[in-house]
Parts: sequence; C-alpha cells; structure tokens
Amino acid sequence: MSQSMLLLSSSRVGDTPYLSHALPMLEKLVKPGSRWLFIPYAGVSISYDDYQQRVAEALGSLGCQVCSAHECPDPVAALDEVDGIMVGGGNTFHLLHELYRHNLIDAIRDKVKNGMPYVGWSAGSNVAGKSIRTTNDMPIIEPPSFDALALVPFQINPHYSDYQAPGHNGETRAQRLQEFTCVDPLSPVVGICEGSAIFRQGDALVLKGDKSGYLFEGTTQKEEIQPGSDISFLL
Amino acid sequence: MSQSMLLLSSSRVGDTPYLSHALPMLEKLVKPGSRWLFIPYAGVSISYDDYQQRVAEALGSLGCQVCSAHECPDPVAALDEVDGIMVGGGNTFHLLHELYRHNLIDAIRDKVKNGMPYVGWSAGSNVAGKSIRTTNDMPIIEPPSFDALALVPFQINPHYSDYQAPGHNGETRAQRLQEFTCVDPLSPVVGICEGSAIFRQGDALVLKGDKSGYLFEGTTQKEEIQPGSDISFLL
Repeated sequence: MSQSMLLLSSSRVGDTPYLSHALPMLEKLVKPGSRWLFIPYAGVSISYDDYQQRVAEALGSLGCQVCSAHECPDPVAALDEVDGIMVGGGNTFHLLHELYRHNLIDAIRDKVKNGMPYVGWSAGSNVAGKSIRTTNDMPIIEPPSFDALALVPFQINPHYSDYQAPGHNGETRAQRLQEFTCVDPLSPVVGICEGSAIFRQGDALVLKGDKSGYLFEGTTQKEEIQPGSDISFLL
Repeated sequence: MSQSMLLLSSSRVGDTPYLSHALPMLEKLVKPGSRWLFIPYAGVSISYDDYQQRVAEALGSLGCQVCSAHECPDPVAALDEVDGIMVGGGNTFHLLHELYRHNLIDAIRDKVKNGMPYVGWSAGSNVAGKSIRTTNDMPIIEPPSFDALALVPFQINPHYSDYQAPGHNGETRAQRLQEFTCVDPLSPVVGICEGSAIFRQGDALVLKGDKSGYLFEGTTQKEEIQPGSDISFLL
C-alpha cells in the first residue's frame, strides 16, 4: 500500500493561529468526513481534553472528526476505527514514553505501512523518524528506548534554526547536529524550519513550505535543501 | 568524610577565556601540586587530547596536575592515584553513556562520598545531579539509564536562561522545567546561570557568583535564589 504522511516542523509559524499555516498542506490528506485518531501524549502542561479541543477547533474548516487516544479504553483497537493518525507536538520524550506504554509503536507503524495517513507536528514529526536522538526537547522522562516509529529511514530535527542567543555559551543547532553525525555518521538528519514540512506520498518525498531545509549526514554538514525539492533519495 | 564539590554552570561567561571566570572559585578546591583525573567524555567534536590540553592550559595558574581518563588503561583504578575528579562540559548524554561504559558511576560516587573533591562544569555539573532529566543537550546517544552520579539529591539545570529567540515557537527554559515538575513533582531542580556555581563543603551548600539561581519543585516555579544564598536545605 502507498504510504502517505505529512511531517510538520511546528504547530505555528511566527504568531499565526494554531496550525493555521498548515491547513493548505493538511487539505491534501485530511478529507471532509474522515475520522482521525489524535495522539495527545506530547502534551505535559496542557490537559489532554484541552489539547484535543484546541486541535479540533484549529482543524474545524477541514470537516474531519478528531477523537483522542486518551478517551479510548484501548487506543490500539481504536486504530481500526479511524481513517488516519494525527500526532501533536509538545515533549518528545513524554510522547515516546506513552507510545511505548500503550503498545502503540508497532501498531501505528503497521497501520501507516499499510496505507493509513499520518500527520505529525513538532514532537509528532520527531517520532516519525528513526529515533528521537535529534529532538530539541528536555528529557523530562525516560522512555524504554530512543527508537521511534521509523516511518521514514532518517532523523528529523523540527524547529530548525541557527539562531544563537546573544552572550549565551551554548551550541548552535548546526553544532548539535554535527555532534550527532560524529556518533552516528550513517543516519541522515533533515532539519526543517518552522513553517516547513516533509510530505510523503508512496515513494515520493518533498520538502514543503517556503524555507530551505538542511541535510546533515556523516561529513555532509548543513547542506541546503531548496523549498519544494524532491528528496525521495532519502527513502 | 566531608564531601566537597564545585558545580559550575558553564566553562565561560560572555566572551571571557575558557574557565577563567572559575579560577577564583576553583582555588578553594584545587591546590598547587594536587593531581586531578579529568573526564573528557562529554567532548564529541573535539578530540580528547585537545580537550585535556585546553583544560590543563586554562588551569595552569593553579599549579595542579591534570591527567585524562582517556589516557588511562583503567580509569576506575586511576581514581586511586589522584586527589580529585574534574568533569568537563559538552554533551551530557555522551558523557553519561561513557561513564556507564567505563564503570565509573559507582566508582566516582564512592570516592566523592569518601571525601574526594569533585569539580564539574555544564554537562559535568548535570551528571552530579540525581539524573540528566534536566539537561539542555541533544540526546545524540542513548545511555543505559538517565540516572546520574547523584552527588547532590536534586536536579541541576546549567546555562539557565529565559531568553526566547524572537519569532521562534519553542518553550522557554522555565516552561521546560515546569513540565519536568509536572512529571516528577518530588525532585527539586536548581537552574544556575552562566557564571554561577553550586559549592558544597560537607553539609553546607551555597550559590556562588553574582547572578540569581532559580528553584523549581512541584508547584514552586522559578523561585529566585539570591547570589551567595545558603541552600543547604536542599541536601
């Protein structure tokens, strides 16, 4: 079955409303009347009820139904009742911890490999990669493993930016990802800026949005990927 | 035995030379002629040889000897030959991964509990806490556990800052630490700004430097700790 997924860097760009920049991209996958299972587990300081409501309101114009995993007695079984999976942002470690706890890793992977569309943003895009080893988040909770859904065979770095706070002595994002390529030179990383997304339809992979992405792999450092580029070679 | 340790937020403050701001604080623990085992494992994109040389040069005026764990056939045995332990900054996950790999967790903890002085900065301060769950670093490699040396019974957040890059949609540091207190309300976190340090002598704990620190614990959020405060209540 042809796989389809939309991996958004962020839920917003600049000060636009929640997910509003993503609506034109979401329209390709989220059809009127379709039913989606929302995974709210990346939310930590927001209640799952509030998180679900926020997403449902943001996607109102698409005419889809959004039920949340936290309302399902058996989230794995709920996957059989929906047309797609939607994984929201927040803390990547908490998200992955809960995906393991609810036995959703293999279950989601199987569904997506068999054609169920997947939409993620921020942490929800991170876990679509091979592992969460290129997340920007704080490791507030320890998941059983850093291995993630591996819906694509590379690493994702959402919210990519090389901004450095003035007077602050920390690594830039490019330096952090360069260190990743030191310890794992064989796993490519794609950094995607806020507002951008990776869109997969079967064997075709494209960088969406109007900002460049950046590829890090082995000795390749911060190689620019033009907006709209075909990056199917990464599959 | 009375425990002594200096946990520095960072290796530099602003654009001052490497470790130079720390020399007046280090003088309290690092005596002329004393021998120190340096742990370079947080270094990823710098060679351990270069890292050792950088530290030895920075500490030249103290008149101490610095040998590095990467030059020792048996780093655990090397602990018996030195007067103190010095753990440098870099990537916290890589540091903890290597501390486990070289069986140094229990070995260092035992030495420090029996009076051997410990100096850490950045990642080296992070691992002195209960766990690395409040590090700012990217999880580029998966350690066997997030549990760290637990030389103090709380969490440390080095490089504390609430600066937010303009136009960027990510959490502030205070928001990240607040999320930590949501998943673990019983573990206090002390955020220390660049230039500051936590200094322990036996049962006395003091915040050194001229910047405030911040305490997060349960519903306590970003409670200011004045420079020079006695924070022994955290022990």
